[in-house]
Amino acid sequence: MNTQHISSPTIELKTSAWLNTDKPIKLDELLGRVVVIHTFQMLCPGCVSHGLPQALKIRNTFPESDVVVLGLHTVFEHHAVMGPEALKVFLHEYRIHFPVGIDQADAGSNIPLTMQAYSLQGTPSFIVIDRKGKIRLNHFGVIDDMLVGAYIGQLLSE
Amino acid sequence: MNTQHISSPTIELKTSAWLNTDKPIKLDELLGRVVVIHTFQMLCPGCVSHGLPQALKIRNTFPESDVVVLGLHTVFEHHAVMGPEALKVFLHEYRIHFPVGIDQADAGSNIPLTMQAYSLQGTPSFIVIDRKGKIRLNHFGVIDDMLVGAYIGQLLSE
Amino acid sequence: MNTQHISSPTIELKTSAWLNTDKPIKLDELLGRVVVIHTFQMLCPGCVSHGLPQALKIRNTFPESDVVVLGLHTVFEHHAVMGPEALKVFLHEYRIHFPVGIDQADAGSNIPLTMQAYSLQGTPSFIVIDRKGKIRLNHFGVIDDMLVGAYIGQLLSE
Amino acid sequence: MNTQHISSPTIELKTSAWLNTDKPIKLDELLGRVVVIHTFQMLCPGCVSHGLPQALKIRNTFPESDVVVLGLHTVFEHHAVMGPEALKVFLHEYRIHFPVGIDQADAGSNIPLTMQAYSLQGTPSFIVIDRKGKIRLNHFGVIDDMLVGAYIGQLLSE
Repeated sequence: MNTQHISSPTIELKTSAWLNTDKPIKLDELLGRVVVIHTFQMLCPGCVSHGLPQALKIRNTFPESDVVVLGLHTVFEHHAVMGPEALKVFLHEYRIHFPVGIDQADAGSNIPLTMQAYSLQGTPSFIVIDRKGKIRLNHFGVIDDMLVGAYIGQLLSE
Repeated sequence: MNTQHISSPTIELKTSAWLNTDKPIKLDELLGRVVVIHTFQMLCPGCVSHGLPQALKIRNTFPESDVVVLGLHTVFEHHAVMGPEALKVFLHEYRIHFPVGIDQADAGSNIPLTMQAYSLQGTPSFIVIDRKGKIRLNHFGVIDDMLVGAYIGQLLSE
Repeated sequence: MNTQHISSPTIELKTSAWLNTDKPIKLDELLGRVVVIHTFQMLCPGCVSHGLPQALKIRNTFPESDVVVLGLHTVFEHHAVMGPEALKVFLHEYRIHFPVGIDQADAGSNIPLTMQAYSLQGTPSFIVIDRKGKIRLNHFGVIDDMLVGAYIGQLLSE
Repeated sequence: MNTQHISSPTIELKTSAWLNTDKPIKLDELLGRVVVIHTFQMLCPGCVSHGLPQALKIRNTFPESDVVVLGLHTVFEHHAVMGPEALKVFLHEYRIHFPVGIDQADAGSNIPLTMQAYSLQGTPSFIVIDRKGKIRLNHFGVIDDMLVGAYIGQLLSE
């Protein structure tokens, strides 16, 4: 277990809208806290069965003063049926209450802008940013709860 | 465990389209086989986590010559984001290969026509029809795999 | 799903003791009901995690007037630490309340007598006997709840 | 999530024997590493279904150079059927390969000596000791994998 190998500067999220929050989230306003970002597509089975329940568990395990949990809807396929209205219904039905940004579409590509900037390989992806704003983990696919806890615990006590 | 208390005549499905099948399914052409119908909405969490995986398990447990597995998309809320195109993507992503009918909308109600005819209370619902075409079970909500197996086994040997 | 291929006459259980019952169980006194027998060893991981919980679920799913659930402790290894006193503690701690027979030791073999008579290959094994006393299933290893339900349901309506 | 509230000095384990290790384990020889101790009884259902699988997951998640995983068999009931020979079979059947100490019996009490010294309330209990040898967590009952990971991760980076 080692998050030390990645130590990239923060890449600000590029979003067209935010849900479940009164104002847009800026990563540089979250310095001092550990930030976890779950990127997902609402019709991605692994996101629905694993990634989002894990994000909710993180939200329920750590205090908001220490750990920020964000969702990012990075639609790179089937754009027509995963628009903002569909996403709103999805978040309502699945009782996801933490802030979710909509990754900003790129007119010239199916891949939205934040997904490009973070070089994400697909969904679900799991990003962890430390208290100083450095990206410490950028993981594609399923990741075990114990390991997620260990990454967060490690960064909390740095 | 007793399915005897219901013994209603078949109510034909009223659908606007069928997916995963070359031609529309007619219940009266399925006489001689046990038919199970899983009614669902693609953004209903209990359908996604329980009902549809159970339908797939039924499909994999019993031969098609004995048991027919059908899905029925009974949209009664959030109609705008659960249309046919969204459903096609959903079935593709979740690898659901058995025939799925789209319950026919009622111009004067949010409740589609088959849902009305079967007096369904919500999603997921699970309907079992015996070899003679009689409805023997009409269950709303989660139902255990062992009990589902028992209902089907009982009807198979009648 | 077909239990028809086995249709052996009942083989009476040979036991040195019974727990959780006032008097020894005789299979020929159970004619008219479906009987399921879970054979296990108390220190067999697959029995503890799968077989016995499934036996308890069968007990809770079907009425006793239709389905009899029996355990059979078929110790064929580590005999010294799986004796009757250890078994009593195990049944108490795991809250197993259905009758459990202790398969009778064979002075000349590690394999106890009922295990020999039924040609059991190991634990857990799952035996199903129909209302007429014929052995219809003799399965070694894990078996899915839905399939178990189907076997029992089929025999119930014969 | 806070392990800071406990900061007791190490209490050395009092054992009558060790299994899965060539020589007895002394906590004061483990300084510099995080030590987790799962206390259990081999016939305790919660230990078998939750505590010991979690201990194995910790062993597989963290390197041995950072995290030591120990079992402690704290028998406080049914002593006659949970002796050393039964425990050996149990560890073999459940494929538990990390060191397991047998908590030393107290001639005047059902509660063994280490269990008394740590004021353990029952099984399973989960103890975490930091790199400096201080007890940081002493938890009775089931504890979630994510929280366990967080405790360990936090102590690893202190």
